[in-house]
Parts: sequence; C-alpha cells; structure tokens
Amino acid sequence: MKLLLLSNSAAPGRSYLDHAREVIAEHLDGVTELLFVPYALADHDGYTAKVAAFMDTLGIRVRGAHTAREPRELVASAQAVFIGGGNSFRLLKSLQRHGLVDAVARRIRADGVPYMGSSAGTNMACPTLRTTNDMPIVQPVSFDTLGLVPFQINPHYLDPVPGSAHMGETREERLRQLLEENDVPVLGLREGTWLRRSHDALELGGLAAGARLFTSGAEPVEHAPGADLSPLLAAEARFDCRPD
Amino acid sequence: MKLLLLSNSAAPGRSYLDHAREVIAEHLDGVTELLFVPYALADHDGYTAKVAAFMDTLGIRVRGAHTAREPRELVASAQAVFIGGGNSFRLLKSLQRHGLVDAVARRIRADGVPYMGSSAGTNMACPTLRTTNDMPIVQPVSFDTLGLVPFQINPHYLDPVPGSAHMGETREERLRQLLEENDVPVLGLREGTWLRRSHDALELGGLAAGARLFTSGAEPVEHAPGADLSPLLAAEARFDCRPD
Repeated sequence: MKLLLLSNSAAPGRSYLDHAREVIAEHLDGVTELLFVPYALADHDGYTAKVAAFMDTLGIRVRGAHTAREPRELVASAQAVFIGGGNSFRLLKSLQRHGLVDAVARRIRADGVPYMGSSAGTNMACPTLRTTNDMPIVQPVSFDTLGLVPFQINPHYLDPVPGSAHMGETREERLRQLLEENDVPVLGLREGTWLRRSHDALELGGLAAGARLFTSGAEPVEHAPGADLSPLLAAEARFDCRPD
Repeated sequence: MKLLLLSNSAAPGRSYLDHAREVIAEHLDGVTELLFVPYALADHDGYTAKVAAFMDTLGIRVRGAHTAREPRELVASAQAVFIGGGNSFRLLKSLQRHGLVDAVARRIRADGVPYMGSSAGTNMACPTLRTTNDMPIVQPVSFDTLGLVPFQINPHYLDPVPGSAHMGETREERLRQLLEENDVPVLGLREGTWLRRSHDALELGGLAAGARLFTSGAEPVEHAPGADLSPLLAAEARFDCRPD
C-alpha cells in the first residue's frame, strides 16, 4: 500500500500544495493521470481546476470524479487517487452516496494504487471520521471511512495558545475527550507535516514541528520528521467503547 | 414554552454560570429542584456537583439524570431541566441511548417545564447537531436533536481574527459552508450572550457583543442585546438539501 497523507494543502506564502511539491512528485512518480475527488468543497469544477494547475507542473493530467455519471468506473481504472480537503462530513456523505468508500479502499489496498489525501482526505484514510476538526454540516450514513491505516489522524494539529482568552477547549483537550470514549492512537499532524506509508513502513515527514501522538492512559509523545511510526500500523482500534 | 439558551457557561474571571446569574434566577423562579443532564462530560458526579454548588446559591436543589436507573422517570417528574455543555456528540448519543430526546422535548413543549441549556445544551435545543463546534468523538444514531426552536444556533460564536496565520476556516466560513448544504437560519451567539424564549417571543440577552445571524442568499446581520428575534420562530428549515 502506498499512501501520502498531508496535514494541509495551503501553507502561508505558498501556492496550493507547493510546500509538499517534492514528496508529491516522488509519490506520484510514473503516474500520468490522477483521479481527483473534489466532494469536500461545493465547487467541484473550480476545485478540480486548481488541482489540475498544480499537477500540470508535474506533468500529470487530472480527472475530477464528479465528471463521470458513475464515479466508481473512474476508480476502477485510476492510476492514482487524490482526495482533497474541505468539509469532511460533506466529503464522506458524497463518497457514501456514490459507493466510493469501499471502491477506493479496495483499489488502494488490493491493487497498490497510490493514494494521496490532504486534510479531509487524510481524515478519510483513517478508520473513522472521529478526529476531524470540521463542522457536521451534513449527516453521513456512518462515521466509517476508508481505513487505510488502523489509527486516527488529527490534521491541522494546533498547540494550545498560552494566555488565550478563548474559553473553548484546546485541541489537546478535545483529543483527550476522544480517548475517554475510544481506544485508538491519535496522531496530531501539525501544519506542514505528512505521513508516508509504503507497505509496512510508516514515516513522518515535513516541517520540524512534527507530530504529537496521543494514546489512552499515557502522556502524549512528540515525534520529529524522519520518525519511524511503523508500529502504529499494528494498532487495534476500538470505538465508542466507554462502559456506560 | 420557556427556554434559556446560553452560549457558554464559563466566562473569564467569573465562576461557573456566574455571568448569567440574574437571568438564570428569573428563568428558574419558583423551581425548587432542577434535573441536570451531565452526559456531555465524562465525570457525571463531578459535573453535577459543580452545577449543584451554583444552584445552591439560588436555593435550588439539583438531581443528576445519571443517578437514576431510568433517567426518563426523572424527566417525567422534573420541575425544570438543564442540559450542560461539553462534547455535544457524546451528549446526544447518551440522550438517544436513554430515550431522552423525545422525553425531554415533550416535557418542555407540552408541559411548559422550563428548559435551560449552555453550549452543547443549547445545541440540543435546535433541530439538529449541525452547528456544533465539537469534535465527533462518538457516533450518535442521528443528528436530530430536541427541536425546541426551528432554527440553528452556533454557540461560542467567534469573529475572524485579523491577520491570523492560522490556515483553517473561520467560523463564518464554516457557517457559509453549512448554508451551501442546508436552508436554515443560523444564529451565531457570541460568548456572554443568550436567548430567552417565552411562548412566541424570542429575545437576545447578555453582553453588548450580541449575535450574528446567517441566512441563505443574504449577508449576515448583527443583532444587539434586547433584539426581538421572534420572527426566527417561524423558520422552516430544510437539511441536506443541496441538489446533487
């Protein structure tokens, strides 16, 4: 299995995806046409054009999943799949409606087709939607996502702001609440970082800020770029498992 | 119907609920025992004790819904109901498991029992969970909530921070995405503000910051404390209604 899971697609002062250009080029080496899934935003054509403009600089053509009457047929013949960010509830609901959750997962798992996700697309690679930061603007049939890794990722992971007057929970507090209800490792991927999976190997990449790993009953652990996170691929997750 | 819907329970430099003491005292006038629903946090006993300490200063006893084998029986005899904040997905899942969504709504609607909510408890008074700020740490059976008002409320409404380096969506952007998928007015209740409903009258109260109202196809509108928002009680909401 070949995965590239980006925390974010936009970085300060950089054009779309530019901060990850090198790792994307490596990940998609040999691919001439990419299937892009734009459902996380409302403007499918505009979103696909933005991705096509970036991929054009790598010599890769882009086809939007929404351009086919049966998007599943495009999945069946795809050389590589990219699911972009936006609202992850809207994205998952559309994937479900078009029968793409299992169809995409099968292509990635069984056929070794490279998968790339950013933000909501990275959420989709996890077992469930439970660690998204998005507002539940629509109701998907279930929270089950593609399950390309057996642990959860929190994209755009944010550290607490010292002295903030904001009375809401910090991201860390939210993830600790999640661990009260579920038994699953959660990797907080800071902006500018990503995960690469190649079969049984999982490595953290990107900016020095790195990632913060949360697990039940333990203090969070920091990981720096280059960290070998392969042990996470053996995680056995249990959801909604708090005794009543 | 008698509702008090608070944006938040904690305010800078004030003890729990203290910022809304006067309006709570008015709302619960004549009540000697309050049914408190603590499911939004994991520590039900601790949460109930915190509410009891505040209510004691108003001469009101507090009973936690979790202290009964059948919480529905407590609802049937409650003089008033307060649903507290925390994680709204966890809260709704517990309400569903205990058969409390309809049971509480019926008591408030049919019997005129006063309802009070803060944060997640305010989300519960809306038709659905779609405007919560919380992480979906557990999966409720559906997003349908108590429907004590026919529009959506976004508690802890936050204005964009000018010049912020944060690349995530602003709250306003999130609510605009919500309006791409649903046709429903959304009231962004800033911290320190609340709504009071008495039958067909709805009024905004609290701090001068007030509230921001979002509707499909129109620019957002600001409302100040004292604003008569009764027209919102005639809203006809449609959810997940964007043409495919």
